[in-house]
Amino acid sequence: MEEIISMSHGNGGKKTSLLIEKMFLSRFNNKELNILGDGAILNVNGRIAFSTDSFVIDPIFFNGGDIGKLSVCGTVNDLLMCGSRPKYLSLSLILEEGLLLSELEKIADSISETAKKAGVYVVTGDTKVVDKGHGHKIYINTAGIGELKDGISLGRDRIENGDKVIISGSMGNHGVSILCSRNNFFETNIPSDCTPLNKVTDAILKYGESVKILRDPTRGGVATTLNEFTEGMKFSIELYEDKLPIDKDVKTACDLLGIDPLYSANEGKVLAIVSADIADNIISDLRKLEDSYNAEIIGEVKAANSGKVLLNSIYGGKRIIDKLSFDQLPRIC
Amino acid sequence: MEEIISMSHGNGGKKTSLLIEKMFLSRFNNKELNILGDGAILNVNGRIAFSTDSFVIDPIFFNGGDIGKLSVCGTVNDLLMCGSRPKYLSLSLILEEGLLLSELEKIADSISETAKKAGVYVVTGDTKVVDKGHGHKIYINTAGIGELKDGISLGRDRIENGDKVIISGSMGNHGVSILCSRNNFFETNIPSDCTPLNKVTDAILKYGESVKILRDPTRGGVATTLNEFTEGMKFSIELYEDKLPIDKDVKTACDLLGIDPLYSANEGKVLAIVSADIADNIISDLRKLEDSYNAEIIGEVKAANSGKVLLNSIYGGKRIIDKLSFDQLPRIC
Repeated sequence: MEEIISMSHGNGGKKTSLLIEKMFLSRFNNKELNILGDGAILNVNGRIAFSTDSFVIDPIFFNGGDIGKLSVCGTVNDLLMCGSRPKYLSLSLILEEGLLLSELEKIADSISETAKKAGVYVVTGDTKVVDKGHGHKIYINTAGIGELKDGISLGRDRIENGDKVIISGSMGNHGVSILCSRNNFFETNIPSDCTPLNKVTDAILKYGESVKILRDPTRGGVATTLNEFTEGMKFSIELYEDKLPIDKDVKTACDLLGIDPLYSANEGKVLAIVSADIADNIISDLRKLEDSYNAEIIGEVKAANSGKVLLNSIYGGKRIIDKLSFDQLPRIC
Repeated sequence: MEEIISMSHGNGGKKTSLLIEKMFLSRFNNKELNILGDGAILNVNGRIAFSTDSFVIDPIFFNGGDIGKLSVCGTVNDLLMCGSRPKYLSLSLILEEGLLLSELEKIADSISETAKKAGVYVVTGDTKVVDKGHGHKIYINTAGIGELKDGISLGRDRIENGDKVIISGSMGNHGVSILCSRNNFFETNIPSDCTPLNKVTDAILKYGESVKILRDPTRGGVATTLNEFTEGMKFSIELYEDKLPIDKDVKTACDLLGIDPLYSANEGKVLAIVSADIADNIISDLRKLEDSYNAEIIGEVKAANSGKVLLNSIYGGKRIIDKLSFDQLPRIC
């Protein structure tokens, strides 16, 4: 019979220690973690970014990744969006009684690989077990610390009339991938875009203070993130519908399912607002990278209609793009 | 009808924003959080402690606290045990569809009060919603950052033969309180000891390098924590059974339930190992504080039987105290 997680893996005693040793210390071997104190002791420079996310995605294994990869990418990408260099992660697991140890191993492998790719160390953690029927296989929380890069100052208040809106690649892939893999609606092979964005943000932040704000448009998609930029501000954002990069498969799936890729989640894309004068240079730099080969300028900042996000339709009209206000798909991250 | 959490509170769109605004921004008002970026930007000194814990306690409201208070105390206390001054917390919620908004409000109040008491700011967060039957009302993760105090150096490698073992107060109250409140076994009024330990650790750390290690004996209790100190080391710890502070109610409950207070969880106690020469001074300082009025020297470090924890029984013998290896009670934190 396959080994499974039992309640005693969460008792804080022998079985918890053994699980942590076997599953994590072997994989995340680093001097901060190995001390196994109540927390990790770290040396950082004076200005840091601090972020957290919990991951409850269903299914836990999907085309292009799993909950382990996602839980590293999610927090690493948030730290990158703050203009920081991600350095340290905490990892906290809520395991459901009955989870296969073989599945947990796969997830631990994936966390370890993704952390290596993103250049971060897992330095502290926690494991809890909940009884069957009170979880869903595994929920993961990561929190992370990044060191702020010098010469970078990001914020909504720096956005100006005339600035350009850049997306680092095709929109909506993660959300559509999960929707398709969960429901088996039709035959498709759309992988999630889940990836750590270190190289992509480096390419953008090379332009220093000409970069106004970065955000990864996850839940709620590009439309919701742009609304978070404009809400209550004295500018609007106008998108050019003909410039929005959408993969053909994603477009077909969205048409069939009646969803809008502007609201579909991404897990490997950056939305950036930058000065107009360097926007083309950034695009040409981004297109040299594997993870942003089809980056596009998709819109610009305007003074009129302040507080709003508008779409210049390919048919000529303008329509307001609001925040997500319906349930497109629960538990995509 | 009472308002409840629905799946759309987790979609990342309008309802998520409104929930966060109403529930948290109003309570945790601080300049780092209010920016609502992908993470918080913080100024810290060069050496920090970083810790995380997820809380899955059942029931979420208990005698002496609730999951909100516990989730602040848990991480704050871990940061204190590292010899740091807790400064910043992240707060990540996994809400189950159907949770009463009124319950979430009570928990948010409790987080806010406890954070104030412990001197920490909630600076970044996340909210996810899982469908009914895939959670248990609410799970909370907190991660925290503390600034290391100068002149403090804590670690197992600093423990020496002759050092004394101190507990800041009665043992096992949290575990027994939860067990009783969950099962209504018999009429009892044992409150959890859940509290932030800032003052208690300050009183101990005043003695600088004479303090060897601090730990809060939560899951697995005092017995398990002491084994984590001795495991693989060249010393043992001997406890004096007649010195172990155990409240009368807790003792009675433990006798009836057949559990050992040495293995029962604490959420407001410090276990410290300190140089013999200042142990009495620390005890007299601790006894002046409300949260450690019955602190005791409960044992000492010896050379013989290295790697083990032993109990000098009131009846004269010595017995080995191992790590928790059975399921005393699941989901106590």
